[in-house]
Amino acid sequence: MEDSRLMQSMLLDFYGALLTDKQRQCYDLHYNEDLSLSEIAEQCGISRQGVWDNIRRAESALKEIEEKTGLIRRFQGTREALKSIRKQAEQIGSMTQGQSREIAGQILREIDGLED
Amino acid sequence: MEDSRLMQSMLLDFYGALLTDKQRQCYDLHYNEDLSLSEIAEQCGISRQGVWDNIRRAESALKEIEEKTGLIRRFQGTREALKSIRKQAEQIGSMTQGQSREIAGQILREIDGLED
Repeated sequence: MEDSRLMQSMLLDFYGALLTDKQRQCYDLHYNEDLSLSEIAEQCGISRQGVWDNIRRAESALKEIEEKTGLIRRFQGTREALKSIRKQAEQIGSMTQGQSREIAGQILREIDGLED
Repeated sequence: MEDSRLMQSMLLDFYGALLTDKQRQCYDLHYNEDLSLSEIAEQCGISRQGVWDNIRRAESALKEIEEKTGLIRRFQGTREALKSIRKQAEQIGSMTQGQSREIAGQILREIDGLED
């Protein structure tokens, strides 16, 4: 996942506000809008080399922030837990009361197992 | 909550890794360990004024990062939802099947209501 589009998109979502406007714009157009360097250069009114530099600097800054803070990793743990709780809660509709209790216990353990 | 010790502590927990070592150390000793400026100065081997400057710069950097990214606010929303789901799951043990289904529906709505 480290180098996937999804990760690039999450990095921008979490930390994009810490980039310069130009870095954020070039990175977004490249990774989210899938524009070529030439297209971005035209849209931003800077050279292709300038676009390239902005994307590289943005990548490096975003990666460094996540390496230092680990907030995406932490947030993802919680999101995974919520996804799993969602599935469990969906099952309760078609269960006996005993089974529902068991599922409720699993949900409680899932929540208690999350890091603070 | 904005100016509370809890908020200062969360700011350090989330974004402390983005401060300089000295800023992080002074801020931590002041807000989490409750040491005086003189005590921190002695422990860090810098002047009281140096301690004060480091704390102020750390405060301003941490506040700016949260204002820009809003990640603590976002994380807290998820934590509140988990707390509420926990309470609901606890109730399932003492409920009829119909009531359990209703609670499960509330849990699903709670999860679906969270921002991505």
